[in-house]
Amino acid sequence: MASVGYVSPQRMHFADALPLRSGATLRDYTLVYETYGTLNADKSNAVLVCHALNASHHVAGEYADTPRSEGWWDNLVGPGKPLDTDRFFVIGVNNPGSCFGSTGPMHLNPDTGKPYGADFPVVTVEDWVDAQALLIERLGITQLAAVLGGSLGGMQALAWTLRYPERLRHCVAVATAPNLSAQNIAFNEVARRAIVTDPDFHSGHFYEHGVVPKRGLRVARMIGHITYLSDDSMEEKFGRALRSAELGYSTQDIEFQIESYLRHQGEKFSEYFDANTYLLITRALDYFDPAAAHGGNLSKAFAAARQNRFLVVSFTTDWRFSAARSREIVKALVDNRIAASYAEIAAPHGHDAFLLEDPRYHGVMRAYFARIATEGGF
Amino acid sequence: MASVGYVSPQRMHFADALPLRSGATLRDYTLVYETYGTLNADKSNAVLVCHALNASHHVAGEYADTPRSEGWWDNLVGPGKPLDTDRFFVIGVNNPGSCFGSTGPMHLNPDTGKPYGADFPVVTVEDWVDAQALLIERLGITQLAAVLGGSLGGMQALAWTLRYPERLRHCVAVATAPNLSAQNIAFNEVARRAIVTDPDFHSGHFYEHGVVPKRGLRVARMIGHITYLSDDSMEEKFGRALRSAELGYSTQDIEFQIESYLRHQGEKFSEYFDANTYLLITRALDYFDPAAAHGGNLSKAFAAARQNRFLVVSFTTDWRFSAARSREIVKALVDNRIAASYAEIAAPHGHDAFLLEDPRYHGVMRAYFARIATEGGF
Repeated sequence: MASVGYVSPQRMHFADALPLRSGATLRDYTLVYETYGTLNADKSNAVLVCHALNASHHVAGEYADTPRSEGWWDNLVGPGKPLDTDRFFVIGVNNPGSCFGSTGPMHLNPDTGKPYGADFPVVTVEDWVDAQALLIERLGITQLAAVLGGSLGGMQALAWTLRYPERLRHCVAVATAPNLSAQNIAFNEVARRAIVTDPDFHSGHFYEHGVVPKRGLRVARMIGHITYLSDDSMEEKFGRALRSAELGYSTQDIEFQIESYLRHQGEKFSEYFDANTYLLITRALDYFDPAAAHGGNLSKAFAAARQNRFLVVSFTTDWRFSAARSREIVKALVDNRIAASYAEIAAPHGHDAFLLEDPRYHGVMRAYFARIATEGGF
Repeated sequence: MASVGYVSPQRMHFADALPLRSGATLRDYTLVYETYGTLNADKSNAVLVCHALNASHHVAGEYADTPRSEGWWDNLVGPGKPLDTDRFFVIGVNNPGSCFGSTGPMHLNPDTGKPYGADFPVVTVEDWVDAQALLIERLGITQLAAVLGGSLGGMQALAWTLRYPERLRHCVAVATAPNLSAQNIAFNEVARRAIVTDPDFHSGHFYEHGVVPKRGLRVARMIGHITYLSDDSMEEKFGRALRSAELGYSTQDIEFQIESYLRHQGEKFSEYFDANTYLLITRALDYFDPAAAHGGNLSKAFAAARQNRFLVVSFTTDWRFSAARSREIVKALVDNRIAASYAEIAAPHGHDAFLLEDPRYHGVMRAYFARIATEGGF
């Protein structure tokens, strides 16, 4: 399958401050984004792709100067792919507070002239959607054909339908949830404690100390990684396989392959991900709860989205955001007589399945986007 | 229900070195233990209770000078309780490597005159069972009426039937597994990394530095705690309840009740539990795998236990050691035509259920121990 080829990120600066849900504002900020495909004459074929915790605006294609730099959803987005860039104009944008180019905690705080660090304002899913909406407006797009996202990205896609229902036609929400469970919050909190209590965190101002709280980041990523994989797929991939032929009888050396894998994932992550961003993004996950403003009634929340149509996709072995959580969303949509397609994909890979190329999953995505294109006449 | 009342721990010293599975030995060690009830004339009514990760020999009763010092299984063990101390003589023993009195990493290494620290030899479930068997022998007991344990304690009960089948009649294995899954090992490994990478760990020799790796211990306990509770019970107990009426929009302050609860659990644990013990005990969990010596065939492993009878108990919401893992044990027993009773208790509390007073669970335990007493004529 063809790729969108070489791509380049673009930057857009916003002089007007972004009001945030917390009451604070984000001043003088920049969003980094990428686009793939061609915007049609009536600007009706645009799809916004929202990213999850450790992804970015770089959804598809690769960078000319960087080997193995394929975008994180390159298997889904491209010419002839389920989200077909021969028909759609696809936009990826890095959210503020992230660490891949848009204004974030490692950038200079205009109030102090020093890096924001832990003083970067707390951002929510709704704040990100507001920033994305401003970008879309500046690109001259009045109505998106669809907003698409998986996991935390799916929450953004849902939030679009609640905040700007007239600015999109379809919402495609994959492997997501209407809010975090106590267990989800608990895992986030442990990860945050690991980072915050790393002496190299320096209360979030580690940039000025020339260090990185890598110990905390490693542990945070290891915890996260366990929750992304299904118990079964971990068992199949690693089981109790040993690294060496003989047990070493050590509490600190690696004995099992799964330990080696997790340590490697933690190490890689600690080399590129920002600790303050990890705190901000897990908090945005914790806070997302559109039903809260409606006395916990999700159906009432989705009354705002009556003009939108939805595809909701879940995976049977996802225990981070289980299929039951997606069914809560579908129920709220059905309660509002909103047109909703729902696919519960029997896939072994747990939460990570949304990033993988499962034929049934991609078949559903392909069919749904083809329908959007056909009804849009492009 | 009456308690066994005030109890006192006892100590037994062993001059002969204990050979360990790793090839190392443990020299000049002491086991701390408690007993409840009275050993009958033919010494046939003794039940050994094996402890899990953070428990000890203090199974039942309380200490005269310490308020709220009830033993960890006090709801199960006592006069008129399911394991009835009016009929049984119950023994609790602290395992070597633990931190509640038996020889462990905080004690002096006779080879160096300094605390063992990280040099304490790696101990396995089988090593513990060997040490327990020596204690039982010294108490003059040739055959135990039963060995009972939950979780890691259940693994010890199973190991008794494989190593010393002639020295016990019944095995009662609750909320346990025939080995750890990759996911179980993964959680242990993250907890260990949190401890080992805490700068206060000092390669396991923190005693000499006058510090405790509390940051790592807190994170380790928080992770553990998430896996002890069911998703449902956490949701029911905490849900998304906030600590304050209003959101504070902070990445580091407590927003949700579940965060407060977990931090409290971590803090308490870090004040009494030894970091080296945490490493040792999680490793013993990782290593336990009686099928490994039989090409992975658990049924072949249990051929050794043909003279024993079993009660296996699991809980429907336990996702640490799921009911499916207990059914693996039952299948291996049935394959050997070993008499096995199996109860799968519909209880909401996850892995922790084995420590709680669920009427159906305690009913099963009561009936099984009554049968043991009746057939033993005491």
